[in-house]
Amino acid sequence: MHRYRSHTCGALRAEDVGNTTRLSGWVHRVRDHGGVLFIDLRDHYGMTQIVIDPNSPAFSLAETVRSEWCLRIDGKVKARTAETINEGLPTGEIEVFATEIEVLGASAELPLQVFGEPEFPEDTRLRYRFLDLRRETLHANIMTRTQVVRDMRRRMEDAGFNEFQTPILTASSPEGARDFLVPSRIHHGQFYALPQAPQQYKQLLMVAGFDRYFQIAPCFRDEDPRADRLPGEFYQLDLEMSFVTQEEVWDTMEPILRDVFEAFAEGKPVSQTFRRIPYAEAIRLYGTDKPDLRNPIEMQDASEHFRGSGFKVFARMLEDEANAVWAIPAKTGGSRAFCDRMNSWAQGEGQPGLGYIFWREEDGAVAGAGPLAKNIGPERTEAIRQQLGLEAGDAAFFVAGNPKGFAAFAGNARTQVGTELKLVDEDRFELCWIVDFPFYEWDEENKRVDFSHNPFSMPQGGLEALEAAQAAGDEALINLKAYQYDLVCNGYEIASGSIRNQLPDVMVKAFEITGKTREEVEEQFGGLYRAFQYGAPPHGGMAAGVDRIVMLLCGAKSVREVALFPMNQQAVDLMMGSPATASAAQLRELNIRVNPPPATS
Amino acid sequence: MHRYRSHTCGALRAEDVGNTTRLSGWVHRVRDHGGVLFIDLRDHYGMTQIVIDPNSPAFSLAETVRSEWCLRIDGKVKARTAETINEGLPTGEIEVFATEIEVLGASAELPLQVFGEPEFPEDTRLRYRFLDLRRETLHANIMTRTQVVRDMRRRMEDAGFNEFQTPILTASSPEGARDFLVPSRIHHGQFYALPQAPQQYKQLLMVAGFDRYFQIAPCFRDEDPRADRLPGEFYQLDLEMSFVTQEEVWDTMEPILRDVFEAFAEGKPVSQTFRRIPYAEAIRLYGTDKPDLRNPIEMQDASEHFRGSGFKVFARMLEDEANAVWAIPAKTGGSRAFCDRMNSWAQGEGQPGLGYIFWREEDGAVAGAGPLAKNIGPERTEAIRQQLGLEAGDAAFFVAGNPKGFAAFAGNARTQVGTELKLVDEDRFELCWIVDFPFYEWDEENKRVDFSHNPFSMPQGGLEALEAAQAAGDEALINLKAYQYDLVCNGYEIASGSIRNQLPDVMVKAFEITGKTREEVEEQFGGLYRAFQYGAPPHGGMAAGVDRIVMLLCGAKSVREVALFPMNQQAVDLMMGSPATASAAQLRELNIRVNPPPATS
Repeated sequence: MHRYRSHTCGALRAEDVGNTTRLSGWVHRVRDHGGVLFIDLRDHYGMTQIVIDPNSPAFSLAETVRSEWCLRIDGKVKARTAETINEGLPTGEIEVFATEIEVLGASAELPLQVFGEPEFPEDTRLRYRFLDLRRETLHANIMTRTQVVRDMRRRMEDAGFNEFQTPILTASSPEGARDFLVPSRIHHGQFYALPQAPQQYKQLLMVAGFDRYFQIAPCFRDEDPRADRLPGEFYQLDLEMSFVTQEEVWDTMEPILRDVFEAFAEGKPVSQTFRRIPYAEAIRLYGTDKPDLRNPIEMQDASEHFRGSGFKVFARMLEDEANAVWAIPAKTGGSRAFCDRMNSWAQGEGQPGLGYIFWREEDGAVAGAGPLAKNIGPERTEAIRQQLGLEAGDAAFFVAGNPKGFAAFAGNARTQVGTELKLVDEDRFELCWIVDFPFYEWDEENKRVDFSHNPFSMPQGGLEALEAAQAAGDEALINLKAYQYDLVCNGYEIASGSIRNQLPDVMVKAFEITGKTREEVEEQFGGLYRAFQYGAPPHGGMAAGVDRIVMLLCGAKSVREVALFPMNQQAVDLMMGSPATASAAQLRELNIRVNPPPATS
Repeated sequence: MHRYRSHTCGALRAEDVGNTTRLSGWVHRVRDHGGVLFIDLRDHYGMTQIVIDPNSPAFSLAETVRSEWCLRIDGKVKARTAETINEGLPTGEIEVFATEIEVLGASAELPLQVFGEPEFPEDTRLRYRFLDLRRETLHANIMTRTQVVRDMRRRMEDAGFNEFQTPILTASSPEGARDFLVPSRIHHGQFYALPQAPQQYKQLLMVAGFDRYFQIAPCFRDEDPRADRLPGEFYQLDLEMSFVTQEEVWDTMEPILRDVFEAFAEGKPVSQTFRRIPYAEAIRLYGTDKPDLRNPIEMQDASEHFRGSGFKVFARMLEDEANAVWAIPAKTGGSRAFCDRMNSWAQGEGQPGLGYIFWREEDGAVAGAGPLAKNIGPERTEAIRQQLGLEAGDAAFFVAGNPKGFAAFAGNARTQVGTELKLVDEDRFELCWIVDFPFYEWDEENKRVDFSHNPFSMPQGGLEALEAAQAAGDEALINLKAYQYDLVCNGYEIASGSIRNQLPDVMVKAFEITGKTREEVEEQFGGLYRAFQYGAPPHGGMAAGVDRIVMLLCGAKSVREVALFPMNQQAVDLMMGSPATASAAQLRELNIRVNPPPATS
């Protein structure tokens, strides 16, 4: 017989009754039922009920075992009586009468209960992550993560992508976030950097002719703590394709990602095709480039109804052509109580308030109510209702000013309205592409245009468009679009990508407009810039956030609930005790020293 | 039509004749055959012959293109004439008559030719790796690597292993090699370390109950340059299993690794079962724990034939019981010229020489010859021949002294003999397990025993064996075996593993013998040691070197020939310019400074 087990704890069935078995696993819980001991023995595969009656030679040892001890148990498989069958458990038709128990690993008193998953402070959970990971929910989340990654990988391979591992000890690259640095021992005063993303390497792979690359890639950013991002390191499904337009990237990745979602959605509906929403339209309809399309509300321009109206605040604002009034239709929100609550919410957000109209049945007709309706009169109120397609029992909220300034707030108001009115169907996955992102944005600090995302994207229209916009001025530059896109699910950006700028002249021109010289381009993106001199193919791709996708699929509230051994929000690994001081000898070898600690005042 | 291609460069066949096509790819070479231009257009998938005759509207542009330009070509598929069909090329039955050419990416003068793969200095190849990777051999090696990794992964998954990514920003761990350190910005004077291997994390996964783990894992060691290891980072197929004996690890991994080898061996024979050779036996037979079993030579103890013999040097040595004489039988090596060559080789290795006997036909009988044979006389010479099973035309070489001192040299001599006599069948993969490694070794510097591999292995016999050996003294400790094993292929160690010591008491005792206290164990292996207090399962596993396995399968001479973007032997990434100096602002944020450079004298 095997030294440790003949079956896993999830294997035994009614047909095994009468056989002897050997199991190994953990004591999920022990119960004493009138002198007979019951142990729920748990392993990765399941749970089996062990019975130790007082006649068993294992009884006296069994009396000493406690939760989370690791045991080997020999015994006989018996059928449960009809009334004790547990239909919720695959092994629920049987139980094992123990004849021998071996303690493989005893346990000290538990700092963290596994059974029942009672709440514990996150730092305790992270310090004792090896116990936390035994808990059903986290164990299942981690297994889902493993399966999602495997599924992604297989679908990518089936679509003709090849996986390549790109270097982790690499060069610092000014891509946006802060790099982690690694001092070189051999080269005095020099440093490697951990990659923020394999961006340059994947583009170099295209220049090298590999055609379709992907990687489940570790990425590193030394950023200050954020709730929706793991401190330090995170994983991307990173990919790149040669000889493609952006449409081909979308057409390739849409079915792959949809199928990944469907495979793990547990029956929840997933968008069958992903809407392709231009950035400007997303802002106009949803106030954000990360719209949650489970929320059915779409905002509309209602300016015409307020222009020259009796509501002077809006009417005066609209005298400036840059300003507008947006309406947020709120189906079923037509009560003064709800409208007042929204108004208070807006004030809590630092806004002066949130204008509204609500409609009710009055003498057999639909009539608008509230201060705004009074000010603009019934005709305009009715025209608004008509435009928004609302009825008695509905409401509309209004945000006025320069949309550039208020769009984000309007988007939040849309979310608030949708959530409060339970218009959002939580049990679905709504995916859309946000496309045609602006190439440049205005950098207020340096009073000039800068790249709005990263400098690797191709501007729509290429060199001609860049030159024309440069001649026409900053406004034209800011209106320039890039072949740049995001994928959004339920209000989260889950992927981002672009067609790359692989033409050295266009690259230099694009940088020149942000105030950088050819020499600076060469210095900062040397490897890539040099490669583009030697027959670079048109190429593009994207990167999807693995942690965030798994978080959505698990219905988890934090990415740390789907990560194996995450650091805490202070970027500390409490389990391993990292970071830690280095020895003087280590630092000497690396030719560095630590600055004296700041004086505490 | 697609913007860039209707077919890849490997797709067109005779049945496409008459159709129009659009291809994109690189100019592999251009030939001018009497005014008609031929371009071999290459992409990841293959090569297609393009014909541009002087009547083509594309002709004048075609005259300007050079090697490695990236082009889009529209044209008509035509059948080649019978005598120009290229059977070596999948597209060899057709050619494409170009009607339009678009330059997608021109190329500057090439620092490195792709066509024909002429030799270039390695630093040039690494600096222009994106061109080097277009070359057929390297491109194919990298694709083989990708396929090997995919194959390994699928076989591991099919065997019930789950892949988990363990952290890369982690804690320094005294596992042997030097760590790369990463300064923490948030925690003044503290450092993360990059993992030398996911050893502790995978063991924590077992404590967490995940049962069967694997990972294609990046590992980092800041070691001085070595030919058979990549500087900085390398990849392991890392795995761990709970509730297993070492035999189960071997039984599980042997078919997986054998099948991986067979899948990529291109018909070369692969060991169907792997011999399990105890460490002591490997040393005795092959002089090394990394034997190349393609070499049929097995060494034998020949001491008895020299004890008290006329060859006084050996006879006197053998008066010390610790000494021995080993024989290296050399089939077909029976000529004075060969034996003298081996003798010279040994002197080149710093040895006084290499004693030998060779046998020849003399008057219809087999007779030994050479100085040794003369000294010990015909009877002893014949007894040696009988023991070694040699015949006329064969030879034997002899190494004498303390085997601990000479085993490595004897092993090299065995290799030299086998290679020189072409006894080694290069075209096969011979795999074996080396088992029962010693648990401790003598640390001459500190004059005490220390772990011979790593401190994570379980000593055979557990606590009792440790205590008994401790009582019996250093010799007994050094003879203690561990549940520790290597996998060796063709003379390379390709994997290493053990059953782990998961019992805190045994761990503390094992460390105590090396002079470490419980407190030091807790400090150095805190996460793991703490975890073992809470019901740790018996577990074991191994890690296989991906780079080295791919190198063997590709028949490459260096691991850098199977790595995508390796650093050079000075640990410099010439393509990306890494490592590099960091900005003063970066260092300030990290609270470190660089020591002044050493004074140059």
